[in-house]
Amino acid sequence: MLELSQSTDLVRVLHVARVRSIGMAETDVVIVGAGLSGLSAARALRDAGRTVTVLEARDRVGGRTMGGQLAGAPIELGGTWLGAGHTQMYALVDRLGLETFPTWNDAGRLLLDLGGRRVPLASHKGATPKLNPIALADLAQGLARFGRLARSVDPAQPWAHPEAEYLDGQTYESWVRRNLKTRIGRSYFRVLAEAVYSADGADMSLLHTLFYTASNGDLETLISVDEGAQRDRVVGGSILIAERLAEGLDVRLDSPVARIAQDDAGVVVTTRAGAEFGAARVIVTVPPTLAGRIDYQPILPAWRDQLTQRVPAGTVVKCFAAYPEPFWRAAGWNGQAISDRGPVKVTFDVSPPGLGTPDAGSAADVGILLGFVEGGAARRWQRWPETERRRAVLDCFTRYFGPQAARPTDYLEQDWSAEEFTRGCYGAHFAPGVWTGYGDVLRAPIGRLYWAGAEYAVQWNGYMEGAVRSGRRTADEILEVLS
Amino acid sequence: MLELSQSTDLVRVLHVARVRSIGMAETDVVIVGAGLSGLSAARALRDAGRTVTVLEARDRVGGRTMGGQLAGAPIELGGTWLGAGHTQMYALVDRLGLETFPTWNDAGRLLLDLGGRRVPLASHKGATPKLNPIALADLAQGLARFGRLARSVDPAQPWAHPEAEYLDGQTYESWVRRNLKTRIGRSYFRVLAEAVYSADGADMSLLHTLFYTASNGDLETLISVDEGAQRDRVVGGSILIAERLAEGLDVRLDSPVARIAQDDAGVVVTTRAGAEFGAARVIVTVPPTLAGRIDYQPILPAWRDQLTQRVPAGTVVKCFAAYPEPFWRAAGWNGQAISDRGPVKVTFDVSPPGLGTPDAGSAADVGILLGFVEGGAARRWQRWPETERRRAVLDCFTRYFGPQAARPTDYLEQDWSAEEFTRGCYGAHFAPGVWTGYGDVLRAPIGRLYWAGAEYAVQWNGYMEGAVRSGRRTADEILEVLS
Repeated sequence: MLELSQSTDLVRVLHVARVRSIGMAETDVVIVGAGLSGLSAARALRDAGRTVTVLEARDRVGGRTMGGQLAGAPIELGGTWLGAGHTQMYALVDRLGLETFPTWNDAGRLLLDLGGRRVPLASHKGATPKLNPIALADLAQGLARFGRLARSVDPAQPWAHPEAEYLDGQTYESWVRRNLKTRIGRSYFRVLAEAVYSADGADMSLLHTLFYTASNGDLETLISVDEGAQRDRVVGGSILIAERLAEGLDVRLDSPVARIAQDDAGVVVTTRAGAEFGAARVIVTVPPTLAGRIDYQPILPAWRDQLTQRVPAGTVVKCFAAYPEPFWRAAGWNGQAISDRGPVKVTFDVSPPGLGTPDAGSAADVGILLGFVEGGAARRWQRWPETERRRAVLDCFTRYFGPQAARPTDYLEQDWSAEEFTRGCYGAHFAPGVWTGYGDVLRAPIGRLYWAGAEYAVQWNGYMEGAVRSGRRTADEILEVLS
Repeated sequence: MLELSQSTDLVRVLHVARVRSIGMAETDVVIVGAGLSGLSAARALRDAGRTVTVLEARDRVGGRTMGGQLAGAPIELGGTWLGAGHTQMYALVDRLGLETFPTWNDAGRLLLDLGGRRVPLASHKGATPKLNPIALADLAQGLARFGRLARSVDPAQPWAHPEAEYLDGQTYESWVRRNLKTRIGRSYFRVLAEAVYSADGADMSLLHTLFYTASNGDLETLISVDEGAQRDRVVGGSILIAERLAEGLDVRLDSPVARIAQDDAGVVVTTRAGAEFGAARVIVTVPPTLAGRIDYQPILPAWRDQLTQRVPAGTVVKCFAAYPEPFWRAAGWNGQAISDRGPVKVTFDVSPPGLGTPDAGSAADVGILLGFVEGGAARRWQRWPETERRRAVLDCFTRYFGPQAARPTDYLEQDWSAEEFTRGCYGAHFAPGVWTGYGDVLRAPIGRLYWAGAEYAVQWNGYMEGAVRSGRRTADEILEVLS
């Protein structure tokens, strides 16, 4: 652990003293952010007998998970899927009395729309698309090569790779250009980057994409449904996890944090409205780019502040369209498309359970398509008028699944970069030079100040599973030092 | 100009109304930041008959220019040089009754310390170092090739380059690896990146380095003294420019801005201490990464907030050592070194004028060496204890200029990334994908909110000259719309 810098004379000691003198109730730990990471940390601390207050900027819990309704069915406006290997999430869902159901994947093919050609792909993991042999060979060698490289990176310390400087000195896009020779091969790898990171290949360090792949098992897991990262959903919506986790915890909504002051005696966290909360430790669970906007006293060390300047959030909009029925299923499609045209380049069937699946659950009579607009496509699309945005999305759905897609009964967009208290999803990506320049201090506490969130997870980074693991890990670190 | 988004209903209209009802004095324009850009804008607006209030977070004006003293001589802790082509700065200095003197460059050679070899280089622009012919040829073709590429970029709109996506999809480091074949050639290009951008080649988009080069004339200008960007200094220190600019302006020191709220009627700027300032327009002149930390009402559009997440400040520490005399001059060195070892990789003679120069001015009997610790070298060096940091710097000075450098009479470090209200120098660099993703809205006002600063300059971006030009340009834009 890095020691608090010598500049504690900068702390507003008087400030801390004043809070104490007015007899404010103190807790062991204040947690900033009531997302899955903050709530998991709070539960772990409380279960160990500690007192915890969670300060949440929004009027709801859940952070980057968020519930919504479309055509009477619950939908996930944010984090959605539980995937293979997400062991803590499955156990948590079970413990909270919730149920999961499989993402629709049966009896239909995935649509590849690359280089102007529509190619169906069988739904099972490892299926081979009917591309021309040269493109297929190119794609296969690219996937194998990237996979080998990813396996050489330790997700706990990507900066320690023997070739770290080289891998972190280039973009993912540079790697794609060098290692993929066909237009379809390159297109596929680019769409893959957008789908997995909600950023363009140009935005990211090659080392970051390797780290992320290693953190999440392998490339095929990341992009797959069956036995992949998009395997299951929660009946009623993933927001139920945060809502149930929050039950019985001291969560203060509408409490955006403006300042965190610490000294040898403790921490005082002050909200924008001026409410003050004293504690022995504080965990900041908001994404790094937002953590950098808090006024810290003493100020953050140079390396920490510069780190928060260098880990932007991705750009993603979720677009939902509801139909009287999931008509694409009858036509032999599973509702999944991967396209290099856009603006929607990736789609999923997120109809509620009970429609043609063996699973029970709410059986709303509705089919719902989810389209992701991501990275550069989202940056352009965001600036269009509402009617153009909607038309562009429905044009994509129509191109993929037929003319019925043009007339939804209901339509909804969720732009996460426009959310004041998120400012981008799914998570942070690291530009070249950042992992090698700052990675070794990413998780380092600063005095009484700790960090948690999906961005800090070693395993399942970027997923709900990673958020929960990071929250619990940080709670454990604090339990070790609390007297 | 982009229109204020429809979400003005989010504005705290009541807030604005309350300020007006208590009869607070209003100004035409509030300027956030009393650096060269903010002060230049303020002067231009006042000279056109407008009322202006400047809010400055620090207890001093000058921003990234800052005065200091070493061994009784004035030194520049921040921005230092006026260079060839900096026409507005020379005119400004003259109008303010200040004088310049040439950077020490005579009667001595520059030291190249690359690949373990020490090579002297004559001081004049265009001189050829005595490297082995293969390295020399490699370096020459690399410089020519980079120069040609830079000339193809329009600094007013780098995103419009026909190959913009390709150039912005890779790092400067990738370009160096592909285009330089010798170790010395690569070393030189890497040191050059650190010296010019205070960032590593891996941190930056190739397109950004081309833009920056085009914005500042050419590569040779950027790195040169005579007829280059480091040509002259201001007698008494460059801080005198800001101090004189501020005379007679309404500048409020110790006033860090916490919130900027705007609606159809006007803008209210609120300091951390709660003081409120009403205006018709506001110019934010703090670096982009700090501008993103202000609480805006309505919140910034998605594209603007994501832009501020993606333009981090560089990493640079200025280290000064004072000696009874500039002993290196007698040994035939001009005090300039370029080395690939570090932590100090670039040095300058910043002795006060009047010592062996034909120029008058304060004739302190002292020699001062300035060493830059930058980019990745700075990130590591920052975390060392004070005595180790100092020893490492003096070891470099000794390696370059001999054992006399080991025993300075005075020593000083200025770490700009540790400054709460700067958080990095010289300026922002753009990682891959940022110019093409967000460049076209970099200078776009948002309703009543405008941007200025060295980062926003088309010409002489990153220099004092660029800061002044950007400030004036933004003032002109506002004068056009103010009724």
